[in-house]
Amino acid sequence: MKCSVYIATSTDGFIAKPDGDIKWLLRSEYEDAANVGLVYAEFISTVDAIVMGRHSYEKVLTFDEWYYEGTEVIVLTTQDLTPPEHLTGKVRFESATPHEIAAKLAEEGKKHLYIDGGITIQRFLEAKLIDELTITVIPILLGSGIPLFGNKGNEQPLELIEVFTAASGTVQKRYRVKSV
Amino acid sequence: MKCSVYIATSTDGFIAKPDGDIKWLLRSEYEDAANVGLVYAEFISTVDAIVMGRHSYEKVLTFDEWYYEGTEVIVLTTQDLTPPEHLTGKVRFESATPHEIAAKLAEEGKKHLYIDGGITIQRFLEAKLIDELTITVIPILLGSGIPLFGNKGNEQPLELIEVFTAASGTVQKRYRVKSV
Repeated sequence: MKCSVYIATSTDGFIAKPDGDIKWLLRSEYEDAANVGLVYAEFISTVDAIVMGRHSYEKVLTFDEWYYEGTEVIVLTTQDLTPPEHLTGKVRFESATPHEIAAKLAEEGKKHLYIDGGITIQRFLEAKLIDELTITVIPILLGSGIPLFGNKGNEQPLELIEVFTAASGTVQKRYRVKSV
Repeated sequence: MKCSVYIATSTDGFIAKPDGDIKWLLRSEYEDAANVGLVYAEFISTVDAIVMGRHSYEKVLTFDEWYYEGTEVIVLTTQDLTPPEHLTGKVRFESATPHEIAAKLAEEGKKHLYIDGGITIQRFLEAKLIDELTITVIPILLGSGIPLFGNKGNEQPLELIEVFTAASGTVQKRYRVKSV
């Protein structure tokens, strides 16, 4: 079982503004595949399931489009939620620790999980379950917001796999997390 | 007057461990000039003065060597401090806002300030006084520590000047802060 993070951050390490706004990120120049190294479509094609927290799920529900067609989404929540009709069979809700959810999905035959959302990523990092990090750094200081990384994790050495620099100033760094 | 930041962080954005420890940073592979783009010696040669906070000052006092020979160090503090004898004339203490200190040093003819230390950098960023950021990202997750960036600054767009990737996995990013 491999768990990967694929995420964009501001240069000061935020994944969204304090209110969850990510419009600063969705600029036309970043939608162009030439502006990142490992593009989203390529990454998602290697993934068996997406694990995200409730906050991220509620955010993506507000988008015009469901971005995860063809890939099962597991939402970690302790709330008793029901997906909207058009997402029946595409989304399920689970309440479990990162280790429990990884074990359950591995039993189901899943080999590569996409871990998404600040708190969920932090929980999987704390559990030392993340194998690969692809971080696309946007050339902006937000000043405040929702941070990618928390402040109560473990020390984990990384191996840099690749750096891609776009003309727009975006820098994509891809790391393997080394087991210690 | 130009204000620059030249600093190393972990991949999760910390400049030191929670207790101020920076041994994770001072590895032999990072001391090698081939492992960063703009090396410290080159950067410091362009600087007229260094502005740091008391915490950074107290940290560098514990080092075997005084790293700032030939460059005046201004320590921002509200405490009534006296430098140790060997640093007389090399260090002075000021209590002022970033705008006040920048104006004062500009009046003295200083053209390029090196702004150092987490809290001091954050205060200068909040005051929109930082012109250039050189961030050397070390391939390690610390998990917790003293963050480079705070969570109460301003949105400021950046222009990427240069990226340098070392075989060791260190990525140095240099940005110009665009005025808005």
